[in-house]
Amino acid sequence: MSRILRVAGAQTGPIQRADSRARTMRRLVALLEQAAERGARLVVFPELAFTTFFPRWPMDEAETLTYFERSLPNPAVQPLFDRARELGVGFYVGYAELTGDGHRFNSSVTVGPDGTILGHYRKVHLPGSAVVKEGQRYQQLEKMYFEYGDRGFRTFRGPAEWGRPVLGMLICNDRRWPEGWRVLGLGGVELVCIGYNSAAYDPNGGESESAALRTFHSTLAVQANAYMNATWACSVAKAGVEDGAGLIGGSCIVGPDGAVVAQAATLEDEVIVADCDLDACRQGKEKMFDFAAHRRPQWYGPITGQVGAVAPD
Amino acid sequence: MSRILRVAGAQTGPIQRADSRARTMRRLVALLEQAAERGARLVVFPELAFTTFFPRWPMDEAETLTYFERSLPNPAVQPLFDRARELGVGFYVGYAELTGDGHRFNSSVTVGPDGTILGHYRKVHLPGSAVVKEGQRYQQLEKMYFEYGDRGFRTFRGPAEWGRPVLGMLICNDRRWPEGWRVLGLGGVELVCIGYNSAAYDPNGGESESAALRTFHSTLAVQANAYMNATWACSVAKAGVEDGAGLIGGSCIVGPDGAVVAQAATLEDEVIVADCDLDACRQGKEKMFDFAAHRRPQWYGPITGQVGAVAPD
Repeated sequence: MSRILRVAGAQTGPIQRADSRARTMRRLVALLEQAAERGARLVVFPELAFTTFFPRWPMDEAETLTYFERSLPNPAVQPLFDRARELGVGFYVGYAELTGDGHRFNSSVTVGPDGTILGHYRKVHLPGSAVVKEGQRYQQLEKMYFEYGDRGFRTFRGPAEWGRPVLGMLICNDRRWPEGWRVLGLGGVELVCIGYNSAAYDPNGGESESAALRTFHSTLAVQANAYMNATWACSVAKAGVEDGAGLIGGSCIVGPDGAVVAQAATLEDEVIVADCDLDACRQGKEKMFDFAAHRRPQWYGPITGQVGAVAPD
Repeated sequence: MSRILRVAGAQTGPIQRADSRARTMRRLVALLEQAAERGARLVVFPELAFTTFFPRWPMDEAETLTYFERSLPNPAVQPLFDRARELGVGFYVGYAELTGDGHRFNSSVTVGPDGTILGHYRKVHLPGSAVVKEGQRYQQLEKMYFEYGDRGFRTFRGPAEWGRPVLGMLICNDRRWPEGWRVLGLGGVELVCIGYNSAAYDPNGGESESAALRTFHSTLAVQANAYMNATWACSVAKAGVEDGAGLIGGSCIVGPDGAVVAQAATLEDEVIVADCDLDACRQGKEKMFDFAAHRRPQWYGPITGQVGAVAPD
C-alpha cells in the first residue's frame, strides 16, 4: 500500500487583536478548503492560530481568558472542525489551552479526518519572560501566560487511510531544540507538525538580526533536525505585521533528506502542499541513522543530567 | 582583550595507500605553513589525516599496525609537531590510536602553540560494520578496527594567547549526531573542531545519493548544530578519489549564527581561513539558547534511557 500522504501547510497572515473570532475562523476554513482542493489530507496551521500572538502584552484576567479555549472543539472554533470533517481532511492546530482545573498551556492537537483527536501536545520550550519588562511596548510573556508542557514528546499513529504514519508535534521555539526532535525520533516519527509565531525584528526598535537571518534559522533548524531524525516535517508560520510587530513567514515542508520541498513565498494567508512519501524515511532510519546500531547513550548523560551550560575553568 | 581567533581548515586531497608517510607529512607541513602565512593560529586537519582511510579494506594484523600510532608525537609524525611549534601554531589532527595496553581508537588531539596536547578525543559514533561483507570490493570496517570512544565529549580551554576559547572535538560521523554537539554545548563550547572522511558515492557501484546531496548533509549538520549550540565550528575533509573510492570535500568554517563563513572549493589540498570572534557566541548563549533558562531535561529521558527507536503500535 502506498504511504504517500499529501500534506499542506496553511500559513496565515497576521491576525489582529481587533479581529473577530468569526472572521478568523472564515480565513482558516478558506485555507482548509484551498488545501483540500489541492488534494491535501492533513493541513498544518500555526501556533496560537485562533488569535493574535497575545503574549506580547500584559492583560487583565478577564481579557486573558478570551484568548483561551476551555475545551476543543468549542462553539467559537466549531466551523473549522465541522468543515474538516465534511472534507475528510485532518489538521494540526495550535491554541491556548485552559484546563478544567485551571492550568494554562500553549498547546496543539492533531485531528484525524473523522474529527477524532489523534494527539495532544503542550509546548515544552517556552521562550520569553515570566515577568513584564518595564518600559517595553512589546513583551514576550509566554513564561507568564503558560505553564511548561507536562506531556513530553509523544509519537502517535495517523489513520489507515493516511498509511498509519508515525506523527509528532512541536510548537514554535521547540523546533530550535534538538532534544524534542530526538525524543520524537526515538518514537519512530515520520512526520513532525510544527506551528510558529517568530519575530521578524525587535518590535521595540532595538538592534536586531534581520528577518532574512531569522527565516534562515527557522528553516535551518527544521532541515537539519528532519535529516538527523530521518523524518518529514511541516513547519507553519503566522506571518506579517500583527498589531505592529513583525513575524517571519517561511513556512516549509522538508523531507527526511533535509531538503525543502515546498516553502511559502508571502507573508499572507498561503497554502503550500507536498506529497510526503513516508517510506522515504526508511533509508535514513535503517542506515545512517539506525539508532540501535550507532547511538551511545552512556556518553549523553549531561543532556538529562544538567540544565545549564558549565564551561571548564 | 580581543577574542578573535584566526582559524584554518587544512583540507587534504586523497592520501593513497601507496603514499609514504614522509610524503604525506610534507603535504601536511605545507598546508600548515600556508595557514600560518595567512595568520591562522589554529589549523584543523582531517580525520585519520596521516594515511588513507584504511577501514575500507580488511588487512592482516601486521599491515594494520602500520596505520596506528603507538604514541603522539612519534618519529613518523614529528615533522608536523616540530614545524607547528616553530611557527607557534596549534592544530587539531585525527589519527588511529593504539594504546599501551592494546586498545584501538579513531582519535584526535588538539595541540597548543607550544606543542602541549590540550585535548584528546576518541570517536564515539563509529559508523560501518564490525564484520567484512563478502563480495564487496570496498568495506566500511570502523566498528572492526576501532573500539567505541571511551572519553565522552569533553570541553577544554585553549591558551591565553588565543583568548582562552572553550574547545571541543568531534570526528566525522559524530557531526551528524546532535547528542555529541549538545554535550559540548553543555560544556560551554565556543569552537568545535571536526575532521572527516565521507564517501562521495557508493564505491561498490550501488545506487547512491549524489556527492552534492552528501556535501549538503555534511554542511547542514554543522550549520544547524553550531547554531543550536551557539558555537563556531571548523569541519575539515579528506577529499577526492582515494584508492578508487570518492570522498566529498566541502570543508567549512561556520559561525554561531549557522552561516558558512569559509568553504573549500576543490577536492585537493586547500586551506580555508576565517576570523572567529569567540564573543559572537554570547548572543546565542545568553538569549535564544540560554540553556539554564529554557531547557527541560525532565522530558529528555528517552535520549539517555533508550538506544534504538520504538514506534507506537
